[in-house]
Amino acid sequence: MAQRWKITVEFDGRPFFGWQRQDHGASVQGCLEVAIRRFCQETVTVHAAGRTDSGVHALAMVASFDLEKSVAAEKLREALNFHLKPNPIAILKAEAMEGDFHARFSCIGRAYLYRIINRRAPLTLDAGKAWLVLHPLDEGAMHEAAQRLVGQHDFTSFRASLCQAQSPVKTLSHLSVSRVGEEVQIIARARSFLHHQVRNMVGTLKLVGEGRWTADDVSAALAARNRAAAGQTSPPDGLYFTHAFYPGDETV
Amino acid sequence: MAQRWKITVEFDGRPFFGWQRQDHGASVQGCLEVAIRRFCQETVTVHAAGRTDSGVHALAMVASFDLEKSVAAEKLREALNFHLKPNPIAILKAEAMEGDFHARFSCIGRAYLYRIINRRAPLTLDAGKAWLVLHPLDEGAMHEAAQRLVGQHDFTSFRASLCQAQSPVKTLSHLSVSRVGEEVQIIARARSFLHHQVRNMVGTLKLVGEGRWTADDVSAALAARNRAAAGQTSPPDGLYFTHAFYPGDETV
Repeated sequence: MAQRWKITVEFDGRPFFGWQRQDHGASVQGCLEVAIRRFCQETVTVHAAGRTDSGVHALAMVASFDLEKSVAAEKLREALNFHLKPNPIAILKAEAMEGDFHARFSCIGRAYLYRIINRRAPLTLDAGKAWLVLHPLDEGAMHEAAQRLVGQHDFTSFRASLCQAQSPVKTLSHLSVSRVGEEVQIIARARSFLHHQVRNMVGTLKLVGEGRWTADDVSAALAARNRAAAGQTSPPDGLYFTHAFYPGDETV
Repeated sequence: MAQRWKITVEFDGRPFFGWQRQDHGASVQGCLEVAIRRFCQETVTVHAAGRTDSGVHALAMVASFDLEKSVAAEKLREALNFHLKPNPIAILKAEAMEGDFHARFSCIGRAYLYRIINRRAPLTLDAGKAWLVLHPLDEGAMHEAAQRLVGQHDFTSFRASLCQAQSPVKTLSHLSVSRVGEEVQIIARARSFLHHQVRNMVGTLKLVGEGRWTADDVSAALAARNRAAAGQTSPPDGLYFTHAFYPGDETV
């Protein structure tokens, strides 16, 4: 009988067309499936907790798949890392699971980090890994305005037109904005997100940080249920999938 | 009369043959001198607090040069950043100085950070920006052993054969090792360093972290005054020039 595996994956999203397998270019899912095939000649589908967009990174994406081949967890991790080279994808952990575990359907919470570098000078070491915002941002005002988005709402104003979710109603459990030196970090947590929801919320909070919008403007944008009422979609560069939560995890 | 300028520079060292101008490839100094020439048609020599090696990064290198052209500090910074594109070099700050300021000769202290990622999985987002060490490191033992190197010593054992310094005697004022999650950070401060001194000290402390060497072995290597007695030269990837100190700075 096949073994269900859970893997925790870090990747640099820059060279990929996103998580999902594509006909026209490299994807994280595709690279993982090729690495698995090279390792044990099995053709599997790898399911992820979140299907990240092109250029979006992951510090700890969780994915699952089945293998017929019997192998120790540590061996599997090392073998997949070997076969993933030279793609910037690393298996941090591999765990054997019960057969009913599914990285996407079992997931009860997702967390993202968004990094803004707030300065005049161009990015060097962080190029492709953060959003450069030139105008000084008031992170306190951004954090206050962010609280208007926390809770259960119709997030149509923050939803990509291509979003496939059945309902625009989501429950945002946490949205915080804080600064460390020239870096402004936004942390978002929810059971699930709409397509582009985090990037659209960040683009909107930026308007608040620049002093162009108030918290009331954010509330009005949310109430409008119209994508055109909210701010721009922030670039993928600053977005990191940081955590998938499952029942029984210590913190949810 | 020419104006003396001090600039603070961040760069990703990967595409460069190091700081110093080279005939055979790109250097940070060369790119800066070209950007200055593009901006004001003046051919100048840019002097730095530290001449970093190929692949070594800087969070805040300090450099100085003279300009005949009269320009506001902010304008100079923006213009140089424009002309530096697409090189991963950014001017964080430009300051007009008295004519006796010299980034190298006025400098009374230098600080470096060395980043080790201590895990089994390959690097993705930090590729080229840290040293991947697979064996678990005991950062407490490394820190203790590091204290054997603090103070005034003959650092011949930690000196590159190509080092041009007149004397191998240097005063290391600070060397600390600490861990944040899977990252082990080494911070080194001294008035000046020998060529490869930080990377050779890091390569030696790694032996301690792996349990292969004791603090006494580090003392013995130092006392040997022989490069072959100390550990390997760690890769440039993890090294960052972080600070140059000058008389009158708040902290030295």
